[in-house]
This record gives sequence, C-alpha cells and structure tokens, in this order.
Amino acid sequence: MTAKARTPSRRNRKKANGSGKDDIVLPDDFVWSRKDLVGLDELSPEEIVCILDTAESYREVSKRSIKKVPTLRGRVTGLLFFEPSTRTRMSFELAAERMSSDTINFSSEGSSVSKGETTLDTVKNIEAMGVDIFVIRHDQAGAPHMVARNIKASVINAGDGSHEHPTQALLDIFTIRNKLGGIAGLKVAIVGDIAHSRVARSNILGLRKLGAEVTVVGPPTLVPGAIKAMGCEINHSLDDVLGEVDVINMLRIQFERFGGGLFPSLREYNHLYGMNTERMKKCKKNVLIMHPGPINRGVELTSEVADGPNSCILEQVTNGLTIRMAVLHLVSGGTR
Amino acid sequence: MTAKARTPSRRNRKKANGSGKDDIVLPDDFVWSRKDLVGLDELSPEEIVCILDTAESYREVSKRSIKKVPTLRGRVTGLLFFEPSTRTRMSFELAAERMSSDTINFSSEGSSVSKGETTLDTVKNIEAMGVDIFVIRHDQAGAPHMVARNIKASVINAGDGSHEHPTQALLDIFTIRNKLGGIAGLKVAIVGDIAHSRVARSNILGLRKLGAEVTVVGPPTLVPGAIKAMGCEINHSLDDVLGEVDVINMLRIQFERFGGGLFPSLREYNHLYGMNTERMKKCKKNVLIMHPGPINRGVELTSEVADGPNSCILEQVTNGLTIRMAVLHLVSGGTR
Amino acid sequence: MTAKARTPSRRNRKKANGSGKDDIVLPDDFVWSRKDLVGLDELSPEEIVCILDTAESYREVSKRSIKKVPTLRGRVTGLLFFEPSTRTRMSFELAAERMSSDTINFSSEGSSVSKGETTLDTVKNIEAMGVDIFVIRHDQAGAPHMVARNIKASVINAGDGSHEHPTQALLDIFTIRNKLGGIAGLKVAIVGDIAHSRVARSNILGLRKLGAEVTVVGPPTLVPGAIKAMGCEINHSLDDVLGEVDVINMLRIQFERFGGGLFPSLREYNHLYGMNTERMKKCKKNVLIMHPGPINRGVELTSEVADGPNSCILEQVTNGLTIRMAVLHLVSGGTR
Repeated sequence: MTAKARTPSRRNRKKANGSGKDDIVLPDDFVWSRKDLVGLDELSPEEIVCILDTAESYREVSKRSIKKVPTLRGRVTGLLFFEPSTRTRMSFELAAERMSSDTINFSSEGSSVSKGETTLDTVKNIEAMGVDIFVIRHDQAGAPHMVARNIKASVINAGDGSHEHPTQALLDIFTIRNKLGGIAGLKVAIVGDIAHSRVARSNILGLRKLGAEVTVVGPPTLVPGAIKAMGCEINHSLDDVLGEVDVINMLRIQFERFGGGLFPSLREYNHLYGMNTERMKKCKKNVLIMHPGPINRGVELTSEVADGPNSCILEQVTNGLTIRMAVLHLVSGGTR
Repeated sequence: MTAKARTPSRRNRKKANGSGKDDIVLPDDFVWSRKDLVGLDELSPEEIVCILDTAESYREVSKRSIKKVPTLRGRVTGLLFFEPSTRTRMSFELAAERMSSDTINFSSEGSSVSKGETTLDTVKNIEAMGVDIFVIRHDQAGAPHMVARNIKASVINAGDGSHEHPTQALLDIFTIRNKLGGIAGLKVAIVGDIAHSRVARSNILGLRKLGAEVTVVGPPTLVPGAIKAMGCEINHSLDDVLGEVDVINMLRIQFERFGGGLFPSLREYNHLYGMNTERMKKCKKNVLIMHPGPINRGVELTSEVADGPNSCILEQVTNGLTIRMAVLHLVSGGTR
Repeated sequence: MTAKARTPSRRNRKKANGSGKDDIVLPDDFVWSRKDLVGLDELSPEEIVCILDTAESYREVSKRSIKKVPTLRGRVTGLLFFEPSTRTRMSFELAAERMSSDTINFSSEGSSVSKGETTLDTVKNIEAMGVDIFVIRHDQAGAPHMVARNIKASVINAGDGSHEHPTQALLDIFTIRNKLGGIAGLKVAIVGDIAHSRVARSNILGLRKLGAEVTVVGPPTLVPGAIKAMGCEINHSLDDVLGEVDVINMLRIQFERFGGGLFPSLREYNHLYGMNTERMKKCKKNVLIMHPGPINRGVELTSEVADGPNSCILEQVTNGLTIRMAVLHLVSGGTR
C-alpha cells in the first residue's frame, strides 16, 4: 500500500482544536527500516507518524464482520510475559490472530525462568522454535532492548519496568489524533503517579516529538522534578490546568503502592486529582478524558466522567488493537 | 438450512419408551431471535427445540475426519471464566475452533479483576477489542444476564453460581432425545445435591418445558421443599423411584462441601444414593445413566455402571460440543 | 511421499567421523503401523529410522517463510500436561500449529484432576470432545502407555516420570545424524544425573538400537550400576572419556534435588563434570556438545562452551519441532 492510498482520512481531516496545521506529513519516499519497536525514545517523529498512518489503514479491518487479513499467515508471534498482564497480552494476541499469525504464550510463572535460565537464553530457545516476532513484557527496564540486540527475530516492547510502554502511548496518541484532528500544538495533561509510570514516559516522549505541550500533574512525591528534562511542565494542582488543556490522561492508581508513604489516602487522592462532574465544568467543552485502564471508578474518575461524552476510554482499547496490528505489520517487514 | 432438511432423523425417529408423540415439532416459519443464551428459564419450548434441531445438523460435522466449518471465520469468541473450569472451557473452545472462530481466554486469576475492576468494565473492555461472542462463567448468579443487557456482543452463560448452566442441560436433553426418541412423557430422576446445583435447575426447567416428568432425589438437607414450585416431585429414596424412571441423572458430589453438616458421609451417600449393579437390576432395561462429570467412581456410581451399557456419560461429553456449536451458531445470527 | 523422494540428503550424506557405513537404510516397503509413540523401548531400529527420515522431509518446511502445511487441518491435538512444562509444551504446540492442527491445552493445576478424577477418565472425556492426538506428560512412569492401550486416539509420550522422553531422544539423535552423518559406530557420552533422567534412558535406548556406543558419566550416587544392563559403559570420570567420544550430552542439573545427599555441591559438580574451555581442548576437534535445556551457565557448562562452535544446543531446539512434526505425521496415519 502507498501512503497516499492509506491516509486519505488524515489528509482531509478537519482541523479541530486549532491543531493539525503543524503536524508532520510523511514524505512519500519514507521507508520503515526497524526490525523492533522497543521505545518511543529511539523513534524519529516521522517513524511515529508512519506507525499512526499504518494504523489508520488497519482501522477499516476492525470494522469488517470478518476481521481477518492474511498478512502474517505462517508466521509465529510469541507473547512473552515475564510480568503478569491480561489486557495487553489479549490485545496483542487478538491483533496477531487478526493478521492470521500463529501465536504462542509464555509466562514466567512455573516456567524455566524459575529454573534459573537467563532471559536471553529463554528467548533464544523460543526463537529456535521458529518464532518470528516477540512481544515482551518484563519487570526490568531495558530487557526488551537487550533482547532485540541479540536475536534476529523482531521484538516489540509491551512494557519494561518503569521505562517505556510504547504501544500504549501510540494508541493514546492515535486516539487523540483521530478525535482532535492532529497533535502539534495541543495541550495534554497527564495526571497521577508520573514517577513510576512507563505509560507517562512513553506518552511524554511521543507527544513532545509530535509537537504537543505536556503538563504532568500529581502530588510532589509522585512527580519528580527531573521530569522537566523531558520537556514538560509540572503542576501539582489539577484545578490549575483544567481550563487550558485539550486532553486529560488519567494514570491508573496502583493500589499496591499505597501505604509506602508516597501516596496520600485514596480519598485525598480522589479529592485532589480525581475527575468529576464539577471539574468537567471547568474544562474545555470537547476535552478528551483518557485512561489506560483498568479504571478505578471513584478514584481517578467518577462513573459520570468515565461513561460520559468526553471519555474515549473504550475507543483507546479498540485503537490498541489497530496500533498493534500496525506495529506487527511494520516490524515484520511489511511496507507502510 | 431449513428445518426440514435438518431434522429427518428426528422426524422419522423410532418412538421408544412411549415418548415422542407429544413432542413439539418446530413450525417451518420459526426464527431464532435472541442474541444471548443466559438460561433455560427465559426460553420458550420452541426455542429449546430450535437449539436441539440445530445441534442435530451439527452432529454430522463431529463425525467428519476434518471437523471444521467456516461459520465463524473472522469472528472472535471470548472465554471468560471468573470461576475456574477445565471441562466446560475446553468444550466451548473446541466448539468455537471447529467453527473457525478465533478464541481468546480470560480467567480471573491474576488479572485485572484482582485489581478491583468491575465485571462489566472487564467485559466492555474485552468487547472493545473486537470480541463478538462471550462465554461467561461466574460465581455470582445473574452475572451473565447483567452483562448481556449491557453489551452489544452475544453472551452465553457457562454457569452462574447455583443458578443456571443452560448448555449442560441442553446437552443432557439432547442426549436423552437421541437415545430415547423424544422428551415428552418421559420420567427423569435427578439425584444428589439439588439445592446447590445449577445443572439440576437448568435440567428441571428444560425437561418440564418439553413435557417430561422430573423427580429429584436426595437427602432432605440437599433437596429443598421449595423445588416443588418448579413442577417436580421430591423423593428421598432412590430405591423408590428406580423401577419407574427412564433416565437417572446423577449429580456430582462436591467433596469440598462435605463436613459442613449438609452431607452424610461419602460412604453413607454411596449406600443410599449410589448407582450399582444391584440397583441397575431394579431399573427399566434401557434406563439411561447420566452424569455431568467428572465422576467419582465408587461414590455416585460404581465403575460397572459408569462403563456399562446403559451409561451415556461419554456421549454427553461429545454432545456437549455439538450443542455448543449450535448455540454459537444461533446467537451469532446464524439461521436454524 | 516415498522414502526415495524424501531422503536424498541422507543417502548422499558425507560420511563424517567414520560413522554412517553401518547405518540402517529403510527398506522401500517399510510401513509405519503404530498409532502411538510411548517410548523408544518399543520401537525397532527401522521404526526409529522411519521417524528420522520423516523429520528430514519436514526440515524444509521449517525453513520456509510461511511455515505451514495442511496435514492436520481439522484435527485436534490435545496437550495434556499432568506435570508442568514450558519448553516441551511450546514445541509440541508450535509443531501442531505448523501442521494446521487445532490445539487444546490441559494442565492438571486447578482442573478436574484435583477433583479426584482418574487420569484415564480425564483423557477419555477429552477424547469424547473430538481430540485426535494426545501429547501427554505425566509424573507417573507408564501413564502414557496405560492411556494409549485404553483409547482410540493417538498418544505421544512427552515425558513420563523417570522413565522415557522419546521425542527428546529422537531430536538428539536426529541432530547427531545431521551433524555427524550417521549414528552407527559413534561414541556418545551422557553426563550427569543418569539415575533420575528419562532423557538419558531414552537416549541410551535409541542410540544403542542404531549401533552407537554409549558411556554414562557421573558421580556414583547418580549412576546406578544396573544401567549396564542397557548396554552402556559406566565411567565416573569425565576427563577419562573426553578424548574418545564424538558426542557429549550434558544433562540438566535439577537444583531441586540438591541437598538430598545425592549430589556433591554445585561447585564440586562443576569442577568434576562441567564442560569448559580446558576440557574442550582434550576433546576431538569436532565433538558435539549437547544439552536438553534449560542450561545452567557455569554449572553443566561454561558460556564459552555453550555458545561455542561445537555446541548444537539451539539446533536441538529447532530439530525438536521437526521431530515432533514427524511424529504427529506418523501417528496420525500419515505415510512416511
């Protein structure tokens, strides 16, 4: 497919929210050349746009009653989760199946990992079984990068420690672009535990590269000053930024981290940083409310907001499949 | 397929056991209109017969060496087990695969459920990933019904608490119809822990709607008097009913419930309610011995009975796939 | 396919290491007649060669970019692991998928096994769901044999207690044959915990039947004298045999068995039986270093040896798929 044939909707999109005019348009001769997607840190703005444009062309597949393309027939996608996951694993597995790929699941529980094998030995062994693409989640930051450098098969990072979660950020950015018509010039607030969030890190990286302004919001214990180096603003008051942002991306509160002294009480967190009907009134009319899920109703946001007209939480999930199909397509050698 | 083409065997069946003459024959213009199968309570007798007749047409597929039809190609069946299951999950998964559906497994262990997400949010998220049909087992009675009302995708109840297990009852009834030629007028005994059994409840509902007489048999602690309201007889002595019934459906004894004072000892249970060679001699010659499995040899029945000529326990398992293919076919919009 | 068409590479192979000249060549009229593969003990030398030759023809499939053949389309392979396994399960699952078989996983954790069902009842139930081929791992020696005798479907033993692991031995032998040109006349050392190893037992059986000489090496506590009855030599010193063997197959040290008094310390084990650069210098130049995996770097062998030019550990893994495709092909009624 050519870029021309694939992105009519993007080129003719309505310029909402004042954004769009400074967005990058992919040159016709752009060629994707990476075998891996380990993070947004490594990617050029053009590479990010290439993934978004490729996803645009896969969106249509998701709407068919027979949601199936033969792109990866006879190939094998290995889903290697060294850290438990339900949602991301299912999204990748369904994306791979939709492209006719065979899939194989590996989780570190009860496996050879507990027998003392190194991560690289585990992956090389599975590669020797004929797996073509690895989707890897790992609790160690950088593990997918290390693996990618040492094997011939493709590697997609599905989350590494507190480092990156590139496909989550891509699906978030893809959702914003679809809803608001572009990225450049937008103001995006990311709210919550910025310090421990790979979702926040990858979002900041991607949004900045595409020209958005990012403000991170949360209590000082969870928003390190050093994050400024990534090119974003810091604000400890959600109420301060409500009126000026186009997007509010609420991070999930990790209950298991409470009690460590980093978090205020759940009640206080909700009081200071939870989205509710009152706060929605202070926002721009078509502000986007986003959340990577699973949501805690009554903590990060009320049900009224989660299920309200500004929420695009379930669209994010749908777009997750589309983005992952696009990434599988590109790393496996498909042309954009 | 038309009803005519599909049910020759049923129409020409031999009228065994005196039954059959009062059985419902589906009108040619009958159309299945439900997107879900949550219980037999909701179904009309005609709807039950429609499922049985559809299953009849799928039985032939199970006998081919290439057991595969393209009916659900490109569709996704999500197997959501909020309560553990091996057998029912495998039966649905194989049925879906046989219809060329993609499948995705979700079990509540180690998943976002333990992160505090509501059941409905979990299902809506998975629906947003493009799942078309949900097979749901849940420990809460009514959970599949609640989900079905709130999503667009189809829902099949694979067991909800002590409430219903409709596909198990349908496969039991399908097996009886095949072996004995019809349902109306038959006398069926259901033996064991009636109080806690969703299998018993769904069987009573389905058998009564098709005109069978049902007697529930078990110790008074496990057979609540209120069950009479479902239109069945109660008898606390198995020996009393042996000579008059056409079918004996033995429920599985849930070992984990012993010790709560509800059950006699295993030995006493077996003495009073276990089927054995002696008791078989008191039965009608072609009585059907059924069990939803897994059986406890020496408890609900002896090996002689389980493996004997009257047992159709493994046929029930085979018919389970056939019934589940039929249900997947109908709820996904297939014509009967 | 005929044997002629399928084994040109074998017939024209170079006769390395002096072996090959006494190797069995399969008669053109040889026909595989077993529905099961439960062990190498039962097989004739010709049957073993038949599997190796069939695998040879499947090797080419593994090299295609679309690694898929329609051989088992519409059939179902059940992977029944009554004992946990990651690697062997994945290898069989990928082999089955590559042959277009549907697959279904069953593991004994949290299943009806814990509800007291017998192994045979479990398998018969799954057979009744239409499973055609069972891959069974079980902690009880002989369990796959017992199952195979009592069901119509095919059974492949994926490891039974300390008894046999036939496909592991076949992939080892297949790898040796490919690398060294034949089996007859070769000298093979198997090093480690011989007493508890099903891999050692199956290797000894297969290698002896094809005419290799086998020496088992390890501390006296782990090498029972009775093993001599299988036709192999015993040597308690690895250094003694280094210079004369063509193959060194290092068994995995089961950490969990340490502390029982059977093993020396890990350090002492490594000192006496670990392969390292020093010991490599005493070996024949093209000695094969093998290991069934997962390897413990620094225990059975150093990283220099594991990743060195004599190591064929990852080729073993790749050949594992090929052998398993061949076995699935033969037991399911495919002609060689």
